[in-house]
Amino acid sequence: MSTSRSQERLQESLSLVTTLLEKQRVIETLTHKQESKNKELVESLVHRQNLALLQRKLRDLHPADLAHIIEVLPQADRLVVWAELEPYRAAQVLLEASRSVGDSLVEATERRRLVEVLGQLDPDELAYVRESIDPDIVAEVYHSLDAREQSLFRSTVAYPEESVGRLMSPELVWVRDTWDMGGALEEVRRRAELPPRTETLFVVDARHVLRGALSLKDLLLRPPGASVSAVMSTDVVSFTPQDHASDAAKAFERYDLIAAPVVDERGKLVGRLTVDVVMDFLQRQAQSEALRRAGLSGEEDYFAPAWTSAKNRWLWLFVNLLTAFMASRVIGLFESTIQDLVALAALMPIVASVGGNTGNQTVALMIRGLALDRITRANTRHLLRKELFVSLMNGAVWGTVVGLVAAVLYGSVPLGLVMAAAILLNLVVAAMVGCAVPLVLHRLGRDPAQGASVLLTFSTDSMGFFIFLGLARAFLV
Amino acid sequence: MSTSRSQERLQESLSLVTTLLEKQRVIETLTHKQESKNKELVESLVHRQNLALLQRKLRDLHPADLAHIIEVLPQADRLVVWAELEPYRAAQVLLEASRSVGDSLVEATERRRLVEVLGQLDPDELAYVRESIDPDIVAEVYHSLDAREQSLFRSTVAYPEESVGRLMSPELVWVRDTWDMGGALEEVRRRAELPPRTETLFVVDARHVLRGALSLKDLLLRPPGASVSAVMSTDVVSFTPQDHASDAAKAFERYDLIAAPVVDERGKLVGRLTVDVVMDFLQRQAQSEALRRAGLSGEEDYFAPAWTSAKNRWLWLFVNLLTAFMASRVIGLFESTIQDLVALAALMPIVASVGGNTGNQTVALMIRGLALDRITRANTRHLLRKELFVSLMNGAVWGTVVGLVAAVLYGSVPLGLVMAAAILLNLVVAAMVGCAVPLVLHRLGRDPAQGASVLLTFSTDSMGFFIFLGLARAFLV
Repeated sequence: MSTSRSQERLQESLSLVTTLLEKQRVIETLTHKQESKNKELVESLVHRQNLALLQRKLRDLHPADLAHIIEVLPQADRLVVWAELEPYRAAQVLLEASRSVGDSLVEATERRRLVEVLGQLDPDELAYVRESIDPDIVAEVYHSLDAREQSLFRSTVAYPEESVGRLMSPELVWVRDTWDMGGALEEVRRRAELPPRTETLFVVDARHVLRGALSLKDLLLRPPGASVSAVMSTDVVSFTPQDHASDAAKAFERYDLIAAPVVDERGKLVGRLTVDVVMDFLQRQAQSEALRRAGLSGEEDYFAPAWTSAKNRWLWLFVNLLTAFMASRVIGLFESTIQDLVALAALMPIVASVGGNTGNQTVALMIRGLALDRITRANTRHLLRKELFVSLMNGAVWGTVVGLVAAVLYGSVPLGLVMAAAILLNLVVAAMVGCAVPLVLHRLGRDPAQGASVLLTFSTDSMGFFIFLGLARAFLV
Repeated sequence: MSTSRSQERLQESLSLVTTLLEKQRVIETLTHKQESKNKELVESLVHRQNLALLQRKLRDLHPADLAHIIEVLPQADRLVVWAELEPYRAAQVLLEASRSVGDSLVEATERRRLVEVLGQLDPDELAYVRESIDPDIVAEVYHSLDAREQSLFRSTVAYPEESVGRLMSPELVWVRDTWDMGGALEEVRRRAELPPRTETLFVVDARHVLRGALSLKDLLLRPPGASVSAVMSTDVVSFTPQDHASDAAKAFERYDLIAAPVVDERGKLVGRLTVDVVMDFLQRQAQSEALRRAGLSGEEDYFAPAWTSAKNRWLWLFVNLLTAFMASRVIGLFESTIQDLVALAALMPIVASVGGNTGNQTVALMIRGLALDRITRANTRHLLRKELFVSLMNGAVWGTVVGLVAAVLYGSVPLGLVMAAAILLNLVVAAMVGCAVPLVLHRLGRDPAQGASVLLTFSTDSMGFFIFLGLARAFLV
């Protein structure tokens, strides 16, 4: 048995695969260089032996581990491994790999093989990967499905992005409410396999409307004559295909669910949502949020060509340049003041920077509070008041400290006073903008993470320069 | 049956509780104002009626929902709800609530009640909340446990923070490898209850060493005479109590686990790790990472006093001020240059800001890559080279754009050239520092998220000012 050390095992697999690929490259390089007659024989023997080793290793790996190894290999090595996979394993890797890496694999695969690989997927899985693939090829695979599978594919695709309908699986076991335990047990026996993560069976009535859930444990322990409806639990958390996946994820976390039924608007059982899919969704969401807040438009493949990566970062770079230019124009308004007192040029970035940083703290707290539903209409005002207090307090404390340092450094008490006042005021601006931006984006139905930092930094930069240089012009020069 | 709409249901509960609390406050205010004789009678009737309604509502709620409601209520209301909970429910809320909110509840609870509430917890749960509680009180609760529970508490506490040992539960069902299905079934029957998330039973030998896992499905389907060791699966992912929780979490995600056995160094079964605990851990981790990157030392209770919140943000504010002052000194070196050409003061923040933003993109990608094990020793050099290329490309494109704008705006081609060169160079600095800082922190065994942004912004600010003003002094003035 494999007593985990699962991380180590994965590391070992990775280095073995890397070594084999390395050998492969050496062999190929040698082949190019050698000119002797018998090279072909030798080469092909070593080559084949090595390849066989590689193939055996790849066959033993869990699809998730395979996907991981493919993710961390440079593009050339990736394609060698990818080419060695049988269609079914290749299809599993496509499901497990991140979208950007999946895309790079799809792009490098010729049509015939791609159709063969995609043909291995269930209809809901095909719907999941569909967006990365030439519609023409999807259509070809679609036509090879039977009528039931085709309709399943169509209905999955019809649900909105990030909905429960997209994530649910049609694989489930149901029993009738009128049956007894014996009947339910027979149904389980009739199916050679239970789908994974089946802790409970769903109970439906004659119209296939969900009525409850029957745990495998009860099926084991109750007498065969006991009726399903008497034993089943009726307090079942269920979802509809239209529910947003992130709401479902919150319910999974809150109620510690393993699998939950999905029902249509008439209460009919249409699918099942399982915790592994929900966990994947949550991880993808957390990652993409972290990247979006740093101003990356999407997930980036670490081995994508530099050109692709450069473009992935342009939108934000452009917005940043635009706002930086605007803040720069604010400084431009005060050029004569700076000319009179050049120390201002050195001190003004401090005011802007402190504002930006505290504002980003507020933004991070607001985004998290909104994501966890901790911020409600009822408590928003309370929160705003509190953030205002915090900024006044921090402004008073740190404004005084900075003011003192500036006064000593430049030997000017008035300069110190202006600095202290500017920091206090800019912290208040930062707190209010830091609260307002995520709240307004959220009320408008937008993602509060996207763009909040740009808007905030723009405000704290421009206002920081304006307040500081404005006070300086009024009181110092 | 409760066809979810679980989010809506929670919202409704929240507003009902809020309304009841509101009423309570009105009643109490009225009582203070009224001076009439019969007020007491009337008041106490309404008061009691209202309170009874509140209690009934609170009793119906899932502990997780209760915890959520308590999180979003201001402190005064929180304590009213908290005081109404029976000890067992209060203990569950303490487990579900975020640590900062749990702390505020514990602080406001008198010793007698706290001991009563904590007495409701299992030993591993007590170990989990222990840190928030006066050691004296923990000791009192500890002494009320029986010998087995005490030893369980001691061993849980002895495992390192964020280890599997801290998260695992001793609740599990095991069967012997020498039994047959009938024997296993009897064992399940003997226990009135199976712990939740039991999809499989763990199989041990005579020395209690883990040998495999038996699914409930097999228990249902195989004949009673089949031997456990023939039916069980031996490919089980297991953990040790010393494993880091985040490694275990990765394995749960990768292999879609529901529950996994935990074994000691001799392979003996000591506990069980379940997916709900792992999900909680992952969420806590993702949240605290987001906050740490914004420079918050820890999770913040939205209704903590402003003073507490202000202090939570000081460390970073202080570091930020320090680095901002250092960057300011760099500008100070060039005061005479700025005096000669005051446009430099307006343009220099653009160079710093563009560097900071692109650097933070790189930092975000590196942190994510390290967290997901996508960045390995083998591919680091490849990545560095790529980031260098990306920054050169972006620097060339956007440096040209900005240089052109600056040249037109200030009517000076040399100024435009200096601006373009400074942006190109600062983007290269940003890329290299953005790669290096998380990598070095990671190699040193530190959290790459904590502090990476401070160090990066410090570098891009100082270097941005230095490069731009240095080039200007050399070529313009």
